[in-house]
Amino acid sequence: MRESAFHEYVQSRSGKNPRGVVVGPGDDCAVLDVGADDLQLITTDQLIAGRHYDPGATTVELIARKALARSVSDIAAMCGRPVAAVCTACFAGDDGAMAKELFDVMSAFGEEWGAPLVGGDFASGDSTVLTTTVIGMVERSEPGPLLRRGAKAGDGLWVTGAIGASFESGHHLRFTPRVAAGLELRRRLGVKLHAAIDVSDGLGRDAGRIARASGVRVEVDAERVPLRDRARGVERSIGDGEDYELLIAVDSGLELPPVLDDGTAMTRIGTVTEGDGALLRWEDGRVLDASDAGWDHGS
Amino acid sequence: MRESAFHEYVQSRSGKNPRGVVVGPGDDCAVLDVGADDLQLITTDQLIAGRHYDPGATTVELIARKALARSVSDIAAMCGRPVAAVCTACFAGDDGAMAKELFDVMSAFGEEWGAPLVGGDFASGDSTVLTTTVIGMVERSEPGPLLRRGAKAGDGLWVTGAIGASFESGHHLRFTPRVAAGLELRRRLGVKLHAAIDVSDGLGRDAGRIARASGVRVEVDAERVPLRDRARGVERSIGDGEDYELLIAVDSGLELPPVLDDGTAMTRIGTVTEGDGALLRWEDGRVLDASDAGWDHGS
Repeated sequence: MRESAFHEYVQSRSGKNPRGVVVGPGDDCAVLDVGADDLQLITTDQLIAGRHYDPGATTVELIARKALARSVSDIAAMCGRPVAAVCTACFAGDDGAMAKELFDVMSAFGEEWGAPLVGGDFASGDSTVLTTTVIGMVERSEPGPLLRRGAKAGDGLWVTGAIGASFESGHHLRFTPRVAAGLELRRRLGVKLHAAIDVSDGLGRDAGRIARASGVRVEVDAERVPLRDRARGVERSIGDGEDYELLIAVDSGLELPPVLDDGTAMTRIGTVTEGDGALLRWEDGRVLDASDAGWDHGS
Repeated sequence: MRESAFHEYVQSRSGKNPRGVVVGPGDDCAVLDVGADDLQLITTDQLIAGRHYDPGATTVELIARKALARSVSDIAAMCGRPVAAVCTACFAGDDGAMAKELFDVMSAFGEEWGAPLVGGDFASGDSTVLTTTVIGMVERSEPGPLLRRGAKAGDGLWVTGAIGASFESGHHLRFTPRVAAGLELRRRLGVKLHAAIDVSDGLGRDAGRIARASGVRVEVDAERVPLRDRARGVERSIGDGEDYELLIAVDSGLELPPVLDDGTAMTRIGTVTEGDGALLRWEDGRVLDASDAGWDHGS
């Protein structure tokens, strides 16, 4: 089963949420009510040697950094702030030798990003797999946690940073999760911020997720997508994945500043319309189904 | 590096806790202050095919059950109540076919045990590894979250249920985490409940952990340890591991009921004294260093 099919299955099975569960499986984070002033976010992700990083060519520092950054990015996608992290590692062969450095590096990045490493479990096995869980908090006041659903026809579609060639450029190992950007967007826009996702599986596929969750069509203007230096054209770049940028839908007509307080660039790349699916549209009228671009983790 | 050595390293590195972190790495759960009436608990654990279960002889239901139960047991060890769970799975070969059933079974047990499954990530890789993270809550009022430290010379040492032969009997796959017992003990004993741990790596080794964390000696009376039907003597049983019973230190002279409200048996098995380490002591005067018994995950 492909991962997308599995996720659809999970969502189809998750009807009524149990008490305390505000948003169940299927978004970047689950949202919980634990009786605090703010709502709680929780997300978990795997980093698999040979798939998410090249074991022969990646330092322990970058492995640890990426393992944590991917989950912190999910907190950013809900416009929340990270609170703490836990990590497990199963080490194949000699990889166990990196346990201490992995812990130290992840602790350091955890403190830097507001998600101190508070627990873990290390073991040996036949392949090297890291699992990082991050919890965060988000204010209950509007717009609350930013979900994939909520985009409306007429909304502007904006993206942080740049897209494409994440692997070739090393961005997938060195990115800083967009926590500050998410918090600033939330503060600036309030209820005019309608939907958000972090671009992990490709801009096309993740735009399609906003479309499906919101019951709208997302139209991306091909010429407007900001591309990384080494990106090979927009068509390919929206399928590259691992950008870990924020893709947001905001109230129609709203103009965002081109640069946020922490220096993050904001670019308007399209529009939400009535319909379904995600399209990549060129000025010459050419159109591509964007939701099929990108990669399906778990295929 | 053995896992125990790694954990000592982690604790030695974890001096001052960051803001919001009440108890960092090194106990059954980390304890966080997220601004709620209660404190928060978080714990994460791995279940590795071929190590924690026999892949050829274990149903998907029992795999899912154990993956969740181990982490819920850590919440029980702090005398807390579970709130939610997330799970990742890396599947080798055809194991991916069990994803749906795994999710369904874990969801069902999660609801039964108060830890609904709210998120996850499934992928394929070279070995099958599940990681389950559970969060819980525990009242701030005394005794607060029950830690390994806190045992005092003179305390009585008690254990829930029975010990030994967890693998041979199938207990390691079918146990119900001692959440109800932990909550009842907390309610009944209040500040007279001094320390707690769940017996996962063997009664001897886990008694040694209470001793080390509390700066005391734990003396276990060999003839008093309640053994499972298929257990092969106390000496071997305190090293078997995977009992997932609660081992607690309570105020001297305190008598607990032999059976808790949910039917869990309570047995006094020893005494806390001044000194260090954990001893197994027979009536004929024979003494064994108990802390070396049990298994070291990660060896």
